[in-house]
Amino acid sequence: MRKVTVRRERIKDLRKEEWASIQAEKDLAAVMPRVREIIAGVKDRGDAALREYTERFDRVKLKELEVKPEEIEAARSSVDELTLRSIEAASRAIKRFHYRQKRRAWGEEFSEGIFLGELFVPFELVGAYVPASYFSSALMCVIPAVIAGVREIIVCTPPRTDGTIDPRTLVAAELAGATRIFKAGGAQAIAALALGTETIPKVQKIVGPGNVYVTAAKLVAREEGVEIDFPAGPSEVLIIGDETANPAFIAADMLAQAEHGEKSQAVLLTTSANLAAEVERIIIAEAGQARGAQFRILTAESLDECMEFANAYAPEHLELMVREPMDRLKRIRNAGSVFIGNYSPVAAGDYATGANHVLPTAGYAKLFTGLDVDHFMHRITIQWLDKGGLEKIRETVVRLSTAEGMERHAQSIEKRFLD
Amino acid sequence: MRKVTVRRERIKDLRKEEWASIQAEKDLAAVMPRVREIIAGVKDRGDAALREYTERFDRVKLKELEVKPEEIEAARSSVDELTLRSIEAASRAIKRFHYRQKRRAWGEEFSEGIFLGELFVPFELVGAYVPASYFSSALMCVIPAVIAGVREIIVCTPPRTDGTIDPRTLVAAELAGATRIFKAGGAQAIAALALGTETIPKVQKIVGPGNVYVTAAKLVAREEGVEIDFPAGPSEVLIIGDETANPAFIAADMLAQAEHGEKSQAVLLTTSANLAAEVERIIIAEAGQARGAQFRILTAESLDECMEFANAYAPEHLELMVREPMDRLKRIRNAGSVFIGNYSPVAAGDYATGANHVLPTAGYAKLFTGLDVDHFMHRITIQWLDKGGLEKIRETVVRLSTAEGMERHAQSIEKRFLD
Repeated sequence: MRKVTVRRERIKDLRKEEWASIQAEKDLAAVMPRVREIIAGVKDRGDAALREYTERFDRVKLKELEVKPEEIEAARSSVDELTLRSIEAASRAIKRFHYRQKRRAWGEEFSEGIFLGELFVPFELVGAYVPASYFSSALMCVIPAVIAGVREIIVCTPPRTDGTIDPRTLVAAELAGATRIFKAGGAQAIAALALGTETIPKVQKIVGPGNVYVTAAKLVAREEGVEIDFPAGPSEVLIIGDETANPAFIAADMLAQAEHGEKSQAVLLTTSANLAAEVERIIIAEAGQARGAQFRILTAESLDECMEFANAYAPEHLELMVREPMDRLKRIRNAGSVFIGNYSPVAAGDYATGANHVLPTAGYAKLFTGLDVDHFMHRITIQWLDKGGLEKIRETVVRLSTAEGMERHAQSIEKRFLD
Repeated sequence: MRKVTVRRERIKDLRKEEWASIQAEKDLAAVMPRVREIIAGVKDRGDAALREYTERFDRVKLKELEVKPEEIEAARSSVDELTLRSIEAASRAIKRFHYRQKRRAWGEEFSEGIFLGELFVPFELVGAYVPASYFSSALMCVIPAVIAGVREIIVCTPPRTDGTIDPRTLVAAELAGATRIFKAGGAQAIAALALGTETIPKVQKIVGPGNVYVTAAKLVAREEGVEIDFPAGPSEVLIIGDETANPAFIAADMLAQAEHGEKSQAVLLTTSANLAAEVERIIIAEAGQARGAQFRILTAESLDECMEFANAYAPEHLELMVREPMDRLKRIRNAGSVFIGNYSPVAAGDYATGANHVLPTAGYAKLFTGLDVDHFMHRITIQWLDKGGLEKIRETVVRLSTAEGMERHAQSIEKRFLD
């Protein structure tokens, strides 16, 4: 086993270009040719290609691609009662938060006779990718779509070698409101959702976490006219702690982060040399069983320096364990989700607070937003004028349209005042 | 001059596949190789390539790419007072609507000790493409970005052959709040914004309308990691009218639509044979000077049939001139903006109601949303638990994380209850 090491540096010794953590892109480029091949295969040969890739990558020859109602029944009776109740509890919390998040149509008379507003309309058909046995992600992907009002929500998740799906994933997807579930994983699942096959319908948008193949395939899907939530890279946590932070809690959260694998990053930024030393000591003492991750502790001269670094890094998870967190919160520009105080570990949000855990990583939080109800809706403006309202803006419209060479636009206004 | 023709058909005689108007994509594929070449050129040679393409396509050899303060000064004094006042009036209305649209941070205690919320944070650096002399689009692209709080808003707009920019476009861009303005058009401008050159900074997101080259370049920009608002195709209006609709107003709006060029579509759906005949008569009588567009009149057996067609077509502009428009509004799923009643012509929204006129066309309204403040912001969730709050979800988190094989996640919770 590789010995755990913790890199300790001072922020000011790093070049600013090192602050951002865009490490995933190199990996994407490396897998892109194979992913394009898989997508071309599914494009040409549909289900036949999908079955072949499943046989090759998941080592199973599937009879049926779609999960049958009996399989869901069987899954429900095979999951133990306590796990089932925990899935239900998580589901309730996720529903409450996302329901609060949903936007509702509004309209307002902006000036007499000029009524403007917005409608928020769900997509009709979306796909969610759920990595094998990450049943919590099934809840996180499907529930926001249900709350948005999406009519058809397709889940793809890789089969096990015996051709079944993890029963907890089936139960969670069904409980959340998935309308159809298919046994398909990796780039081939994304290809099927993006292009459609004989069995799997082409969707409007694909969401959900996945490995580097899934992410690369989602990027190619965009070229095919399907939208995606965002590309995902290895998971990461960045913690900002001052002398009030609890080193045992920080070390525990960094070690938890390490469970996401070797490319996962767990970074502490601190103004306190004591905290840095103590966290390092605990990680090294307790890391025994931890899969290797990238542990880094960076010391800073001020919390401002920490905030600046955090905004450049744009972490998926940002923990703020400082004396006056609300003052700092205002300065956050780039992060997936922010966890405040000593009792808000990332794990709480991963499973049960109700907030979504599908978040942009690898610097993508500068550009993208974690999964939410908005991801499943589009917006339409509404404009309703009466004759008096139109009269008020008549001159502005006529003058500007004429100036732009749009005489007929001007006439379409004037026609309404002929009588 | 080509004689104007109006196609008249019955909706029920069309195949459903004909309902959608995805006509732009073929054009995109045709220009894509040239666009990729231009983008590769700018990637390799930066400003030098940009200048060469400007010389080739805009027929001007530029000394400076960036517009200087003196040029804006000069523009301001050359625009006539009435036009200036109209630009200001439009700008005020656009600001009011978009300000109302802006989302504000919220937080709520979802259960005792579990506080969740959302932050809405502007992008830092965006680019807006403004086609030459469409100064109203400068307002529409820049104002929502300013209201979102974007720090740096770069405008690119093609120069005239004398090396200047239309003074009205300069005035509008500056009034709206653009921070820098560059003389660059077409795919080469999009390439510069997406990749950055010695002079033009690389932006996070590119918005704004443009021709097929600009749209193709925006799609390639996404492959380079820059977000876009949405691809754009030829403009279109779809009008639903019953016997209460005014045929002269409908014909005027269809003729106005035709000003956007030959690929532009103006479609009337109606349950009234009289209305169909009358609109056709007026269009043919008055089209004399109109540039050719695609005029179509489709008769339907019911307004439900019209609504179904409209949702499949997903028009950029949808005019509803029917007896009970609010009943119909609920059934709209796909449109850029909806104009209700006899006194809400598209031209009003193009210039002065305050709603945005940069809207998805060519069926893209199924997937994308017209330009708004949201396009310039991303969202961050916040999670703040106290010990009591964490205690409440403790069992759920521990059970679910353990079930997913994430023991360290469970420990990160349990550590907080050791004392």
